[in-house]
Amino acid sequence: MAIKVGVVGYGTIGKRVADAIAKQDDMSLVGIVARGYDWRYAMAVRRGYSLYAAESARMEEFEEYGIAVKGSFEDLIQESDVIVDCSPKKVGASHKPFYEKYGKKAVFEGGEKHELTGVSFNSSRNFEESWGKQFTRVVSCNTTGIARTVGALHEKLGVKKARVVLIRRHTDPWESHKKGVINTVVPVLKVPSHHAEDSKTVVKDLDINTIAFSTPHNMMHINAAFLEMKSNVEKKDVLSVLEEENRVVFVSGKDKVEALNSVFALARDLDRSRGDLYEVPVWEESISVNGNEVSLIWATPNEANVIPENIDAIRAITQSLPKHKSIEKTDNSLGILKKLY
Amino acid sequence: MAIKVGVVGYGTIGKRVADAIAKQDDMSLVGIVARGYDWRYAMAVRRGYSLYAAESARMEEFEEYGIAVKGSFEDLIQESDVIVDCSPKKVGASHKPFYEKYGKKAVFEGGEKHELTGVSFNSSRNFEESWGKQFTRVVSCNTTGIARTVGALHEKLGVKKARVVLIRRHTDPWESHKKGVINTVVPVLKVPSHHAEDSKTVVKDLDINTIAFSTPHNMMHINAAFLEMKSNVEKKDVLSVLEEENRVVFVSGKDKVEALNSVFALARDLDRSRGDLYEVPVWEESISVNGNEVSLIWATPNEANVIPENIDAIRAITQSLPKHKSIEKTDNSLGILKKLY
Repeated sequence: MAIKVGVVGYGTIGKRVADAIAKQDDMSLVGIVARGYDWRYAMAVRRGYSLYAAESARMEEFEEYGIAVKGSFEDLIQESDVIVDCSPKKVGASHKPFYEKYGKKAVFEGGEKHELTGVSFNSSRNFEESWGKQFTRVVSCNTTGIARTVGALHEKLGVKKARVVLIRRHTDPWESHKKGVINTVVPVLKVPSHHAEDSKTVVKDLDINTIAFSTPHNMMHINAAFLEMKSNVEKKDVLSVLEEENRVVFVSGKDKVEALNSVFALARDLDRSRGDLYEVPVWEESISVNGNEVSLIWATPNEANVIPENIDAIRAITQSLPKHKSIEKTDNSLGILKKLY
Repeated sequence: MAIKVGVVGYGTIGKRVADAIAKQDDMSLVGIVARGYDWRYAMAVRRGYSLYAAESARMEEFEEYGIAVKGSFEDLIQESDVIVDCSPKKVGASHKPFYEKYGKKAVFEGGEKHELTGVSFNSSRNFEESWGKQFTRVVSCNTTGIARTVGALHEKLGVKKARVVLIRRHTDPWESHKKGVINTVVPVLKVPSHHAEDSKTVVKDLDINTIAFSTPHNMMHINAAFLEMKSNVEKKDVLSVLEEENRVVFVSGKDKVEALNSVFALARDLDRSRGDLYEVPVWEESISVNGNEVSLIWATPNEANVIPENIDAIRAITQSLPKHKSIEKTDNSLGILKKLY
């Protein structure tokens, strides 16, 4: 029987999670939660999604714009087996008591703290840890990027120390006119940035330090790592680990993929919904190896790279499919590629 | 019998024209012209498009990357009934002698001068003028935007004077890392900008002045017009002209469509290839009317708004479908909407 999933929060992640759930033949989307009218909810209705009203919903707007509301936030919880809560940071945490009240399982996102759930999730690194749990938390886009790249190298070759720089898009496109920065770079002055600790929730025993910046672009993050490996490695070993890693792809300047805007342009050419990229593109020529030192550059498509993880997390907590079968099913349903071009 | 169309130039416009042709049941895409290897051609091959080598092609790259080449630029011309030439400005013009040599019809783009073809094209304004011609020229994105908005108001209500400001994205996403401007606004110091004269090639007898700027964003243009009408009008008349106009849609800040990034985000939610927008969105609340004065703001989605015009232009010069039937067929094939949400 299909797992009934409700989605709470309909921003960058929520709407993509809802679409991904709708594509799974072992899941059904119960509905989404709306706060009031705007174009996003009009489009959700066009997609055939049922709307449930948030506690703080502006009900008069639904009426004014003729948008049918199927029930309340708590109705959605009761009708669902699992909730994926993609609400803004801390708002998700505030919903946990509701999920507990009805004894429902829930997946939270990386905006929430690890302590909220006591277990965090990355498909390839620690799927099993969330097996059968009531709650789990999919780590953030950046941590997911680190888990897939540095995490894979740690698991397969052994990383002694990872020193990672995260150059982040300041805001997603849809709200760039309200939350932008202009012509500046904003360092996160707390070092390590929270990503270091967060990475350890899914890649255990990783010695990692992270430094983060925000820059005035809105497409995705770009990251670089200096790795000291436990022993000398060869470039072909690094290439082969990343080549075999799920949801990691190679791109290259020799193919004229030269910057984040190139990645964005090629993602749009894939004809996926919204031009989304679930994969983490690693620049092949950026992989430099010298004895036990490895460095590399990758992009983190922050709007979509955690979407497959959310689908797998639902299967893990509901014990419905083991790791590799879930990853394979998710990747097939979303058209995830090993070569983008 | 399907019209055999070859596409020369595979940048922002060319690749979209190729895709649009492939969607028409009365056309077949003969192939595209490539200069060398990069990810765009790898993707074109994946789409099943035949590649023909440009005069200046780097043939060794095709070999190195195992990309099959079906013939030369001149082979493509000979195998086609019509060429759509989406080459960069002036390069298109340099190809005209080849089309003449083989007696083939061709559609040029707005980068070329009106004098190249002697006739320019906008579907709603002057479809018939290109009927049966050997060559026509689809006016640029901005001129197309003006033709659909100001042009419609001129045709239906009578514009005495149009004063239009064009705030243009400096570069398209795929080459933004090479041709950008940062933290500045670049005025086009020639006033009127070329758009004024260009608009008159498709909207005859329009008194228009245009001032253009480039700004550091890469998504689409945003434009504003001050119109002096020939007589007093009412807002409802303006609304109804634009509502009835093909390829014009309303958006509104009250639906939280508040900036170009909002338009971009909602376009991506339409699940079209590349998140393309063929329609020109007009902000409904920006339409202010005072006696015989009208002002309005619209976005010009420069990557895609001329694509339907290119398809109609092919039908006009080949005399294969009359205006309204062509527009309807094009709009159906591309999923063009009268309401985006």
